[in-house]
Amino acid sequence: MKNICNGKKYIFINMELNRIVLIGAGNVATHLGKALWQAGYNIVQVYSRTIESAKALADCLNASYTTMLEDVCADANLYIVALKDSALQDLLPLIVRGRESALFVHTAGSIPMDIWKGYIMHYGVFYPMQTFSKQREVDFENVPFFIEANGEKEMLALKRMARSLSPNVYEATTEQRKSLHLAAVFACNFTNHMYALCNHLLAKNGIPFEVMLPLIDETARKVHGLHPKDAQTGPAVRYDLNVINRHLEMLKEEPEAQKIYEMISKSIHRYDKL
Amino acid sequence: MKNICNGKKYIFINMELNRIVLIGAGNVATHLGKALWQAGYNIVQVYSRTIESAKALADCLNASYTTMLEDVCADANLYIVALKDSALQDLLPLIVRGRESALFVHTAGSIPMDIWKGYIMHYGVFYPMQTFSKQREVDFENVPFFIEANGEKEMLALKRMARSLSPNVYEATTEQRKSLHLAAVFACNFTNHMYALCNHLLAKNGIPFEVMLPLIDETARKVHGLHPKDAQTGPAVRYDLNVINRHLEMLKEEPEAQKIYEMISKSIHRYDKL
Repeated sequence: MKNICNGKKYIFINMELNRIVLIGAGNVATHLGKALWQAGYNIVQVYSRTIESAKALADCLNASYTTMLEDVCADANLYIVALKDSALQDLLPLIVRGRESALFVHTAGSIPMDIWKGYIMHYGVFYPMQTFSKQREVDFENVPFFIEANGEKEMLALKRMARSLSPNVYEATTEQRKSLHLAAVFACNFTNHMYALCNHLLAKNGIPFEVMLPLIDETARKVHGLHPKDAQTGPAVRYDLNVINRHLEMLKEEPEAQKIYEMISKSIHRYDKL
Repeated sequence: MKNICNGKKYIFINMELNRIVLIGAGNVATHLGKALWQAGYNIVQVYSRTIESAKALADCLNASYTTMLEDVCADANLYIVALKDSALQDLLPLIVRGRESALFVHTAGSIPMDIWKGYIMHYGVFYPMQTFSKQREVDFENVPFFIEANGEKEMLALKRMARSLSPNVYEATTEQRKSLHLAAVFACNFTNHMYALCNHLLAKNGIPFEVMLPLIDETARKVHGLHPKDAQTGPAVRYDLNVINRHLEMLKEEPEAQKIYEMISKSIHRYDKL
C-alpha cells in the first residue's frame, strides 16, 4: 500500500466534489457525513429507507432528504453509498440510473470496486477503517482511509477529500481491502466480544466492568511496541493446565464461553510454538 | 469490593514491611519488585530457580540473590511469592519453613488465600491485575490492586503498600479474585490473541500491522463510555451472512482461524439478542 501523506506533491487534475449525496444514514454515513460537513464539504441530500434516519442526518448537515431513490437529485458530482452490503448489491442499478456522469464510491471494506463496472464511468471505494457507533463521536484524525478508484483523476479527487479528514490515507486494491476488513473483524469486532464476555462474567459476580479498563487499555497499548506474540501473557501461553482446567470448571454453566475459552487457549498455545 | 481510595482514614496498626524478599523473578516479580524499590521499599533478597533471573532482578534492586530456598534469609518481614501456580503449591512448605512469624503474600489471581492456612500466622494476597512483559515498562498508576489478608493488621499493611504504588486499591475475596482473573483472561489474553490472528492475516498479504492500531485503540476507548454490547459493530452483529460467508471462504486455508471466526460470530449474534 502507498501512503500518500509524506509530503508528495500532485498536479491536481480537476474533479470537483462540491455537491455530495449520501446514500445511507447508518453509522458510517452519519460519522463520515458529519466529518465532511465539518471539513467544509457541501452535502446536498441524504437518502435512507426510513424517514427518521434520513431526516436526522440531513438536519445535521443542512441537507435535504428523501426515502425514494428516484427522488435522489441527479446533479451531484459525488454519491457516497454507505449501505449494508446486500442492500448495495440489490439497489445499485437504481442508485446510478440517470446519474451516470457523477463519481460513485462505496465505503465497504468487503465489497470489490468492480461492483460499479459497466454501470458508470467514474467510480471507486472510500473505506474508513474504524468502528462507528452512533452514540460516540469519532476523531477522524485517527481513522485510516483506504482509497481505490478506476482512474487517476478519480483517485486524486478521493485522496484529496480523505486527506482533508485524516493524515492516514492509503491506496489499497480490492484484494488488500478484503484482507484489511477480515483482519479488522478480529482486531475490533472479536476483541469487543471478548470485552462483552468479560463484562458478562464480572456482572454475574457483581463486579463492575470499570475495574477491567486499565488492563484493556494496557493490552491495546502493548502492541504499539511489541509484536502481539511477544505481548502474550496468561495461563494459555504458559500452558498452565492447573489454571486452564480450573477456569473451564468455573465456566461449566456457560457452555458457549467455555467452548470459546478452550478453543482460543489451544490456539494461543499452538501459535506460541510457531 | 471496597475501594479504599476515597479519602477514608485508618488508624494504622503497626506492621512493618521494611525488609522484603521476592520469591520468584518472572514478569510479575520483576515489575512489582522494581515498583516497590522505586517507592522506597527495601528489597533485601531475590530467589529464583535460575541464577541468571535471580541476579538480573537482584542487581536492579540492590539486593542479594539465591537459587536455594534454604538460603532465603529468615529475618525479612514480608515475603512476596510470585511463582507459577504449580510451583507455589509444590514449594510452599519449603518457602515458609523457619520464617513462620513473617507476612507472606502471593500475587496470583487464581490461587486461594487459604493455601497459606495452617502453615503460618500472617498471610494474604497482593494481586496486581495487569499484563506484565519483561520488554515493557508498566505504569503502576494504572494497575488496580486486589488485596486479601487473614487479619486486620495484615490487610492494613498490605493496603498501605499497594496505595504507595497505585490509587486503585480494592479488597477482594478469593472468590471475587477468581472471577476477576477469569474475566481478565478474556479481556487481555484472548484480546491479544485476536490481535495476533489479525497480524497473521495481514502479514500473509504483506500489510503492516501498524495500520490496525487506530482501530485497536478506538475499540478499547469505546468501552470506557459504552457497554460492550452497545459498542459492537461489524458483520456478525448485523448478521450479514454475505460478508460472514465470504470471510469464512477467505479463511479456508486457516482452519483454526476459520473455526474461531465462526464460533465468535455466532456468539456475537446470540449475545446481541439477549
